[in-house]
Amino acid sequence: MNDLEAYMTSSTHQKSGSGSASVERGEVYSDCREGMLESVTTLPLRHGGRVDTLKIGWRLTGPPSAPIVVALGGISAHRKVFAARGEDPNSGWWSEVVGVGLALPAEHYRILSFDYLGGSGATSGPKDGRDFPSVSTYDQGELLLRLLNHLQIDQLDAIIGASYGGMVALAFAEQYAYRVKKLVVISAADRTSPMSTAWRSVQRRIVRFGVESGKPERGLELARALAMSTYRSAEEFSSRFAGVAEVRDGRFVFPVEDYLMARGVDYARRYQPDSFLTLSESIDLHQINPDQISVPVVAIAVKQDQLVPAVDIQSMCSRLPNAHVHEISSVFGHDAFLKEHDALKAIFSAELPPTA
Amino acid sequence: MNDLEAYMTSSTHQKSGSGSASVERGEVYSDCREGMLESVTTLPLRHGGRVDTLKIGWRLTGPPSAPIVVALGGISAHRKVFAARGEDPNSGWWSEVVGVGLALPAEHYRILSFDYLGGSGATSGPKDGRDFPSVSTYDQGELLLRLLNHLQIDQLDAIIGASYGGMVALAFAEQYAYRVKKLVVISAADRTSPMSTAWRSVQRRIVRFGVESGKPERGLELARALAMSTYRSAEEFSSRFAGVAEVRDGRFVFPVEDYLMARGVDYARRYQPDSFLTLSESIDLHQINPDQISVPVVAIAVKQDQLVPAVDIQSMCSRLPNAHVHEISSVFGHDAFLKEHDALKAIFSAELPPTA
Repeated sequence: MNDLEAYMTSSTHQKSGSGSASVERGEVYSDCREGMLESVTTLPLRHGGRVDTLKIGWRLTGPPSAPIVVALGGISAHRKVFAARGEDPNSGWWSEVVGVGLALPAEHYRILSFDYLGGSGATSGPKDGRDFPSVSTYDQGELLLRLLNHLQIDQLDAIIGASYGGMVALAFAEQYAYRVKKLVVISAADRTSPMSTAWRSVQRRIVRFGVESGKPERGLELARALAMSTYRSAEEFSSRFAGVAEVRDGRFVFPVEDYLMARGVDYARRYQPDSFLTLSESIDLHQINPDQISVPVVAIAVKQDQLVPAVDIQSMCSRLPNAHVHEISSVFGHDAFLKEHDALKAIFSAELPPTA
Repeated sequence: MNDLEAYMTSSTHQKSGSGSASVERGEVYSDCREGMLESVTTLPLRHGGRVDTLKIGWRLTGPPSAPIVVALGGISAHRKVFAARGEDPNSGWWSEVVGVGLALPAEHYRILSFDYLGGSGATSGPKDGRDFPSVSTYDQGELLLRLLNHLQIDQLDAIIGASYGGMVALAFAEQYAYRVKKLVVISAADRTSPMSTAWRSVQRRIVRFGVESGKPERGLELARALAMSTYRSAEEFSSRFAGVAEVRDGRFVFPVEDYLMARGVDYARRYQPDSFLTLSESIDLHQINPDQISVPVVAIAVKQDQLVPAVDIQSMCSRLPNAHVHEISSVFGHDAFLKEHDALKAIFSAELPPTA
């Protein structure tokens, strides 16, 4: 493996004005390294095809002696799990849950993450060329393995994966049990539910229709609007969007429609249609073998999750050799992992390795 | 009102070879009249606009002395509730539930229905001209009133309405309590659930995107594919579509995706995008006042219905002066009314007016 990596002190850290790579206790959470691992070793992919010049964008925060945890989220997640000091506080995808004093206390753990293969971040993806191959969750696991080797991390204390990240955690653990002590899997199962595949396959066809019509961003807006509705629960929408329609440009617009389309437009500004297609498909291709996972698994299921029914997580856990399930109730449905700080704090503090 | 109505003996009846308008008992279900009521009286619409030359396509079956029941279904339903003898058995939209010896025994009731205003049938709709106005469920009720006046039916024994038809039944009863003795309302409430509005508003935007891109049928296919997923339950899809994806034209196609797209293509052949837009919007505009409905209401709620949550129907019934709810369990979700013959038979036989 031929590394052309560039370490960089986080811009945050520089902006914080400390000018030092090691800071005093209480501020160690801003000890943040980001890197790009570029390898000339080919990555053959599970469903065929390969990536010849693999790039992996990664980020590692926290004090050097702390337990090391990989945090992985949905297909729109990226290497910045939470914002370090001085960075835009909303720039981390898990900023309500991970950070100093939060459910996953960033001052007590080393937190590693990476941009997904096939996504819109620094890791290899469709932006590097047309016809990017289909990506398996096992391929993402292979990426993580290469990253651990590169960072000389022999064994992770835990992987905490939510949604797609939970699938990647399971795929990794099935292949490389000796490299991780424990999984915390939130709203993910051994395979996807056909109803959720239904919604995602319609989303992908909308995006492709947009691409074919010369308006890929319109397709992505609509697909994301649909996706947002599946991330939440009917209960939440009933309480938030009970208002009446208003007439705009001669047409009725409903409050929930307004919300979804705003989210869609925002998303289409930040993500690439081809990345969305790749990672959305990767969710539906996900299928691992629970019997083969010896690593202890703590699963968190959400009663109102439309995409990953709690019953599917229970079913997976009954096949995992070493697993137990926490079932929580949340009006945020599949998005509970982004929102339910208190419930997650209770589970993380009971299940994660203790810190000094 | 200036009627230019053409009565016709059903083609069925003619094909049956009896040549007679009245047949012996046991075959009276084929006593079938269809008509087109054309009126020069303007119909002003609840949300603004009007229809100047109102046409109503209707159909009435059954023996003249039997109790008279209006049967109304979803936005894709039409005047042919069930196929009379000699007609294509699948040409009625409620053919698994209504017919000789079925849950609603067509030999014992006069069954009236009509094509919805704004739909793809013989009744006035967007096919008559561009910019067809928004349609309220109250407007459909007004149509039914005019039809009853025309047919000289003073009072209906019941309206059985499912989905959109249930909303129309409620709107009619709120306005014209003296014209109907009872409502049987299946999977419909006093207003729509914001989650279902979310899914429908995305569907409408997909259709409009198709229209703007010069491919209205592609938009309608995708919208219908999405709609189909919301009509059923995760349980049903999990048991039907557990198979693996197959590669077609270099791309993975999932079993549930195949099913949904086939349904979408079939639908787009038979329905007009503008009709879909009009009636889909009409669902979301639906809002009636349960306090004002004195007619007895029997409501049927389906536990697995994603579009009309059972809790919304329970909530409506707590406000209706005279109502009770049957809650049933069905993997067919919102489509239970099309499929659950046995459950409906038990309820209909207990709740509908007895026959001679």
